[in-house]
Amino acid sequence: MAPVDMHEIGKRAKAASKQLARLGTAVKNQTLIAMAEGLVQCQDEIIQANALDVAAALARKVEPYFVDRLTLTPARLQGMADDVRSVAGLPDPVGEPFDQSVLPNGLRLHKRRIPLGVLGVIYESRPNVTTDISALALKSGNAVILRGGSDNIHSNKALLNVIHAAMRASGIALEAVQLVEDTDRARILELLRLHDYVNLIIPRGGASLHQLCRENSNIPVITGGIGINHIFVDDSADQAQAVEIVFNAKVSKPSVCNALSTVLVHAAIAPEFLPRLAAKMAEKEVELRCDERAYAILTTDDGRRTTAGSVVRRPSSRLPSRVVSAQPNDWDTEWLALIAGVHIVDSLDEAIEFIGAHSVEHSDGIVSQNPTNIARFMNEVDSSGVFVNCSTRFNDGGQFGLGAEVAVSTQRIHARGPMGLRELTSYKWVCEGDGQVRW
Amino acid sequence: MAPVDMHEIGKRAKAASKQLARLGTAVKNQTLIAMAEGLVQCQDEIIQANALDVAAALARKVEPYFVDRLTLTPARLQGMADDVRSVAGLPDPVGEPFDQSVLPNGLRLHKRRIPLGVLGVIYESRPNVTTDISALALKSGNAVILRGGSDNIHSNKALLNVIHAAMRASGIALEAVQLVEDTDRARILELLRLHDYVNLIIPRGGASLHQLCRENSNIPVITGGIGINHIFVDDSADQAQAVEIVFNAKVSKPSVCNALSTVLVHAAIAPEFLPRLAAKMAEKEVELRCDERAYAILTTDDGRRTTAGSVVRRPSSRLPSRVVSAQPNDWDTEWLALIAGVHIVDSLDEAIEFIGAHSVEHSDGIVSQNPTNIARFMNEVDSSGVFVNCSTRFNDGGQFGLGAEVAVSTQRIHARGPMGLRELTSYKWVCEGDGQVRW
Repeated sequence: MAPVDMHEIGKRAKAASKQLARLGTAVKNQTLIAMAEGLVQCQDEIIQANALDVAAALARKVEPYFVDRLTLTPARLQGMADDVRSVAGLPDPVGEPFDQSVLPNGLRLHKRRIPLGVLGVIYESRPNVTTDISALALKSGNAVILRGGSDNIHSNKALLNVIHAAMRASGIALEAVQLVEDTDRARILELLRLHDYVNLIIPRGGASLHQLCRENSNIPVITGGIGINHIFVDDSADQAQAVEIVFNAKVSKPSVCNALSTVLVHAAIAPEFLPRLAAKMAEKEVELRCDERAYAILTTDDGRRTTAGSVVRRPSSRLPSRVVSAQPNDWDTEWLALIAGVHIVDSLDEAIEFIGAHSVEHSDGIVSQNPTNIARFMNEVDSSGVFVNCSTRFNDGGQFGLGAEVAVSTQRIHARGPMGLRELTSYKWVCEGDGQVRW
Repeated sequence: MAPVDMHEIGKRAKAASKQLARLGTAVKNQTLIAMAEGLVQCQDEIIQANALDVAAALARKVEPYFVDRLTLTPARLQGMADDVRSVAGLPDPVGEPFDQSVLPNGLRLHKRRIPLGVLGVIYESRPNVTTDISALALKSGNAVILRGGSDNIHSNKALLNVIHAAMRASGIALEAVQLVEDTDRARILELLRLHDYVNLIIPRGGASLHQLCRENSNIPVITGGIGINHIFVDDSADQAQAVEIVFNAKVSKPSVCNALSTVLVHAAIAPEFLPRLAAKMAEKEVELRCDERAYAILTTDDGRRTTAGSVVRRPSSRLPSRVVSAQPNDWDTEWLALIAGVHIVDSLDEAIEFIGAHSVEHSDGIVSQNPTNIARFMNEVDSSGVFVNCSTRFNDGGQFGLGAEVAVSTQRIHARGPMGLRELTSYKWVCEGDGQVRW
C-alpha cells in the first residue's frame, strides 16, 4: 500500500469542515442517533473485525489488561451507543451568543460560538475513542482526522463504516470524519505539521504520546490526561472527613488521572491522623510511600526505626497498611496503582510549595476547616482543578455537568480542565450598527 | 558577545512568573505608574539611545515611513506613558471568578482566572510595543520575553531600563520582563521552541513574521494582524449609508489591518450605487480595482470599453475616481493603501462564497436592510469580526471596550478578535464541598 497522503487528508477535512459548520442541530442529532443505532445493528461485523485485533494482540502476548481494553462485546457496543446518544442530547454550542453589550456609540456587540474547524485526534488502543470523538466532533461542527493505534485498526475501520453510513444518510460529506488507516508512525509526525488544515491536536494516551505531540507539533496541542495529584490535610481538618476523602481519591479508581498521588499532612496532626489514614488504606492494601517523619510515626509503635531512604516492607499483620520509605522520584510519579506518597509539612506555605514543585497541574486539594487557609489554597494553587473538602476524583466533564468530555487539559491555552462541546468551539465578534463609522 | 542562552532566559522567566502570578493589583498598578513616570523623567536618555537607532536606519537609506515609525520624541514618549497609565486603570483579570454553579451533589463550582505564565513576543521596529506589552503582561500577571528588532535595539534597552527601575522599586523580579538583546535571527527560532517555559507566542508584525512563527513554533501562536476585508452592499442597502461606511472603512486609516480591501456590490443596485461610491472615493483619490462588470459600469458613460483584465488608467478629470481593471491576485491582496477592489455579485450566496474564498477572517461586513440576509450573513461568515451596517474599522480592542489590545487574533484557538488583558489569562476550576466523595 502506498503511504497515505496526509496533506490530501487535511485538505479534504478542511473542505468538509465548511459544510459541517453550517449544519443545523436537528441534522447533527439525527446523524448521531443513526450512529448509535448502527453500532448495535452492526455489532456482528464490528465484533468480527475486533476479533482480528484481539487475536493479533494475543499473538503478541501483551498484558491481559491490554487485551481487555481492546475487546468489544455486545454490552460494550451498547455502552458506546448510549454515549453517542447522550451527545445527541446535549445542547448544540454552535451559534450560541454570549457577552452581549451595547457600546456608547450605539453599536450592539456580541460573541457567537463557531466550530474550531478541523481536529486531529491521536490515540492508542481504546476503540470507544473512535465513536466518542466522532460524535463530539460532529455535534460541535468540527471535522476530525482520527489516528488510532495499529492495535485497533480492524475495529476502527468497522466502526468508521457505521459512522459513515449514518453521515451518508444525512448527506454529510464523509471527509468530515477520516481515519488514517496507514499505521506508520511517520503519519503522526506529518499530521502534527498540517497547520494549514488542522486547528487543534488532541492526544488521547499516556505521557509519551503527549510529549511526542508537544515537541513535534506546530499546531496547538491539548496536553493533559496525566495527574500527579495532592491532597493537603490541614491541621484544622475534620480528620474523619479527611480520611474518607483521601481514601476515595486513592482507591475508587487508581488507574485514572484524577486519582491521588501524594497526601500532604500537617505536622501538628500527623501523629493522630496518619495511623487513622493507614488503617483505612489497609482495607484496600494501599502501599504508603512515606517521608522520614511519616515513616517514623507509622512504624515507631514497634520501635523499629530505619535509616532514611531505605525501603523496608512490613508484614501487613504487623502494620495497618504497607508502609515503605519513599524514594526521591516517588514524589514525581503518577502511580496508576494502589500506592500513595505520604509527606509531612509544617505549614500551608510548605504544602503549596511542595505542590508547585511536584504537581502537573491536574487536580490538587485541601481538607481544612480554616477559611483563611482555604482561601489562600484556592488562590495560590493554580492546578486545572482545585478541590476543597472533596475528592480530586470529581475532576471530570461528566461530574462537572459538561455531559461529555473530550479531554482534561492541564495546559493554559484555549481551555483548561474538563473539555466538553463548548471547549471545541471558538467565537466570532458580531457588531451591529445603523451607519456608525470611525474617524 | 557569546550568543544568549535562550533556555536560561526561558527558565528565569518561568521562575519569575510564579511570583508575578501572586502579585496584588495595587503593587502591579503602582509599578505601571512608576513606569509611566519614568518614560517622561528619563526622556533624554531614551531619546539619545533612540538617536543611535535612527542614525543607523538613515545610514541604511530605509524608507521615510520606517524612520518615522522608529523615531521617539517627547510627545511620543508622553503618549506611551499615557498608554501604560491607562493599563494601570483597567480591571485586574487575575482571580476573577466566573461560571459559578452548584452541582446536584452540593459541590460549589466556579472558574477563576489565572495568568497564562510566560509570553514570548516577537516584534519589529515599533518601540512602543516594548512598553505596551510589558504593561499588559505585568498587569495580567504574565512574565514576558521580548524579542524586538535589531533596528530598535538601543531604544529597547533604554526603555527596558525604565521598566526595570519601576519593577525594582516594587520588588518584582526583573526576570519577569526580559529583552533578548542578541539580535541574531537564530534566537527567534530558539524562542519558538521553548515549550517547557513559554506558554504563548505573540508575533507583532507583518505576514512573513506570522508565517515564520506558525511554521516553526511548537508553542501556540496568536496569528492575526493581517486583513483582507470585505463589505457586501446588499440590494436592500441604504445606499447613502453604504457609501459612508465603505468610504470610512477604506480611507480613515488605510495602513491598518481592519481597513477595507474589497467592496462587493449586488448586481441589482450596482449601476446606481457604483457611480455614487466612485464619486465619494474620488475625494481621497482611491484607486478602484474593478471586475469586468463593475469596470463596465464605471467606464461605460464615455463608451470606452476594454478587454477584461487589461489595465486602463483613466484621467481623474474624466472619471470620478481612478478606475482600473482588477487582476486575479488583487482579491487576495492586503492593500494597506488607498486602493480597493470592486466586485459585483448576483446574490448573498455569491457574496458569502467570495468572502469564504478570499477573506483571512479578520473583518467582514454587510450593509443591508433585509433582516433575513443580515441574519444569514451573521451566521455564515465566520470572520473574527462580522460587521452589520457599520465600518470594519471598529474591529479594535479600544473600540470594543477592552481598554487595550495585545493583538487582533484571526485564528481559532484560545482567543479570537481583539485580545485584551482577560485574553492573556487561562482559568482553573475551583470545586468546594463538605466531604463529597465519588464512588
